[in-house]
Amino acid sequence: MISINETHAADLVSWVDSANAVGSEFPIQNLPFGIYRASAGDDPRACVAIGSQVFDLAGVDAAMGPNLNALAAAGQNTWHDLRGKLSSALSDKSQQARLEKYCRPMSAVQMMLPVHCGDYTDFYTSYYHAHNVGSLFRPDNPVMPNFKWLPVAYHGRASSMVISGTDVYRPNGQRLLADKTDPEFGPCERLDYEVELGLIVGPGNAMGDRVLPSEAEQHIFGLVLLNDWSARDVQAFEYQPLGPFLAKNFATTLSPWVVTLEALAPYRVPAAERFAGDPACPPHLDFVGNETWGQIDINVEAWLGTGGPPEQLSSATYASAYWSPAQLVAHHTSGGCPLMPGDILGTGTISGPRPEEAGALLELSKGGQQPVKLQAGKQRSFLLDGDEVVLRGHCKKAGFASIGFGEAAGRILPAKKF
Amino acid sequence: MISINETHAADLVSWVDSANAVGSEFPIQNLPFGIYRASAGDDPRACVAIGSQVFDLAGVDAAMGPNLNALAAAGQNTWHDLRGKLSSALSDKSQQARLEKYCRPMSAVQMMLPVHCGDYTDFYTSYYHAHNVGSLFRPDNPVMPNFKWLPVAYHGRASSMVISGTDVYRPNGQRLLADKTDPEFGPCERLDYEVELGLIVGPGNAMGDRVLPSEAEQHIFGLVLLNDWSARDVQAFEYQPLGPFLAKNFATTLSPWVVTLEALAPYRVPAAERFAGDPACPPHLDFVGNETWGQIDINVEAWLGTGGPPEQLSSATYASAYWSPAQLVAHHTSGGCPLMPGDILGTGTISGPRPEEAGALLELSKGGQQPVKLQAGKQRSFLLDGDEVVLRGHCKKAGFASIGFGEAAGRILPAKKF
Repeated sequence: MISINETHAADLVSWVDSANAVGSEFPIQNLPFGIYRASAGDDPRACVAIGSQVFDLAGVDAAMGPNLNALAAAGQNTWHDLRGKLSSALSDKSQQARLEKYCRPMSAVQMMLPVHCGDYTDFYTSYYHAHNVGSLFRPDNPVMPNFKWLPVAYHGRASSMVISGTDVYRPNGQRLLADKTDPEFGPCERLDYEVELGLIVGPGNAMGDRVLPSEAEQHIFGLVLLNDWSARDVQAFEYQPLGPFLAKNFATTLSPWVVTLEALAPYRVPAAERFAGDPACPPHLDFVGNETWGQIDINVEAWLGTGGPPEQLSSATYASAYWSPAQLVAHHTSGGCPLMPGDILGTGTISGPRPEEAGALLELSKGGQQPVKLQAGKQRSFLLDGDEVVLRGHCKKAGFASIGFGEAAGRILPAKKF
Repeated sequence: MISINETHAADLVSWVDSANAVGSEFPIQNLPFGIYRASAGDDPRACVAIGSQVFDLAGVDAAMGPNLNALAAAGQNTWHDLRGKLSSALSDKSQQARLEKYCRPMSAVQMMLPVHCGDYTDFYTSYYHAHNVGSLFRPDNPVMPNFKWLPVAYHGRASSMVISGTDVYRPNGQRLLADKTDPEFGPCERLDYEVELGLIVGPGNAMGDRVLPSEAEQHIFGLVLLNDWSARDVQAFEYQPLGPFLAKNFATTLSPWVVTLEALAPYRVPAAERFAGDPACPPHLDFVGNETWGQIDINVEAWLGTGGPPEQLSSATYASAYWSPAQLVAHHTSGGCPLMPGDILGTGTISGPRPEEAGALLELSKGGQQPVKLQAGKQRSFLLDGDEVVLRGHCKKAGFASIGFGEAAGRILPAKKF
């Protein structure tokens, strides 16, 4: 069990001054891991974010490969030891002269995908999202009966994961236009984002083995922001009976910083309560003896840039998800499926109970019927070419430093013509 | 365009005598690629099958890594040149003395997964399979309207792909038992196989780019047999609205030999005709100028061992699939999704129009209502512990050698208890 320790102390400061600034997302209490390169031709290297700087892990003799998979595989004790070492090194003023050369301004380096993701799974864990979307298509039966029995999920596409800042082409696809009886192939007309978090898998399990809920968090290295770009019109035509495919596999954007479970320890909250009348949690997904560690209070936000500065579209906490991180791991492995280091489990769209807490335009615009009002008289039902979506995430708790996740940003390019 | 050439000549023989035996699946006209190791501690090495032997590619100075991904990435010209070199080397009697040391009996080596599969996609291309299964659940509307407009697909799980001969644990999962109103977690009671072929992706495409149908076959390195093990009861409970997940991700079995498109050139047939009244093929998936190269006449079979020798359950040709290999590549990339070398595209269950051509027990037993009669008074609705499923594949054509795919075999172990 990860506990709150000296690395979380609110009064801890770093000799990297920018880390101590009010509002810094990367104070010394955060220390998220990432992969950077100094310039295009260089080898990728592992680092932590500290204030406005990246600190190369070579500064604490932690050799890594071109991604964080080996660190993810190493497990909780290694993550804990490395965090302790980094916390000491970056707070001890006497080490500044020796270690400053391992720092580079974040603005001067290129961040890369933090892990090589072998398999990407996307869950569907927010009851409010399921209800909002289900109400648009099935008003009498918005949430499927299985939703409260298991965390519904599908396999996503690993090859189209991109790092924050990567432009995304509007996909072409087959969609049924309003006045037509047959589908036509052309640019998506209902392009959307989804605000999610991505759980980065740690050691994982052998094929045939199962990870118990009580042990599941040992297999979560940390979390990133994840934008599950979605072509709603393509999805509507293709998804029966096997689920979304081209509607989701053209791009998924990740933020570069893996915020570890240990960094998130101060912000843990009990798992969301089941609603009155819900079935009891199935025993194989239940949290025996672990009641206070179910969820994480991470506030996630969507921002939209349409030419001027981005404006905020939504804000919600991940803590309201119906299924907790440990339950995703337990369910995923319950039939023997092997999870591998660096695999990513998306939480599904994070929406809260209030309208302004909806994590996708589909919900905010009520299926496109009520466009979202923006500054300067603009409005959006779905994304237009040139729009930039920026996801952000933060944790705050009285008595502790606030930490942030950085950004998962992406701009829409016009569909390619063929 | 791949054409029939001197490597396909029916009278070509090898100095490896077993390759010339009547009924050999691996005559010199086949030359499928694989990965083997001589014993457990050894490095994996690339080879071709020739008769009862594996021939190490070092014999023709073709250096490979631990899998065939680099060869897959190299593209059609490289595959063609290497096939020509191997055909010469293994037919030229004067080279026998020099090259014999690169041969080992197939029975003495361990075959491994031929590629590292980054992403696995499973399609749903057999109209007869869709109709058979759909009729069980939706008698009035067995085949969804989108089936004839696009090759329906979902993303599968790459981490649970195993090589032929690997035992498979019966998965546990949540299923709704006949006399219960709530699902329970326990061993799958409706465990099934699916007879499929897996297309191994060659060079692939950059993100945002699209592969046209006319160019799509350049991105298919070859084919293997693929058993998409399926937990029907788990699937029935979990699959709405996002498709199959735990029902499919516990194991997928591959045969070891990648039979190249060039080896398959003699067995090409026109794409299956659309049925009267069907919509025309959408232009972006159409085969302009390529009419005679649409499909491949590969006969695929399922065999079942229940203690004695395996007995044949079904036989069907892949040629009847509604969507052709090139169309799967064209559709998959039509929204910009990047295909990577070594990715695998499953064809979906291959069933033909006649009852004995059904590629899964679900179909053969009419949803479990009419158990399949076996020898010695045995019968099966679904798989029992200890059962072994063996998939086989062959191509025959008058005037050409017959070639085979080897086997994709797997035995069911009892569910693990936790």
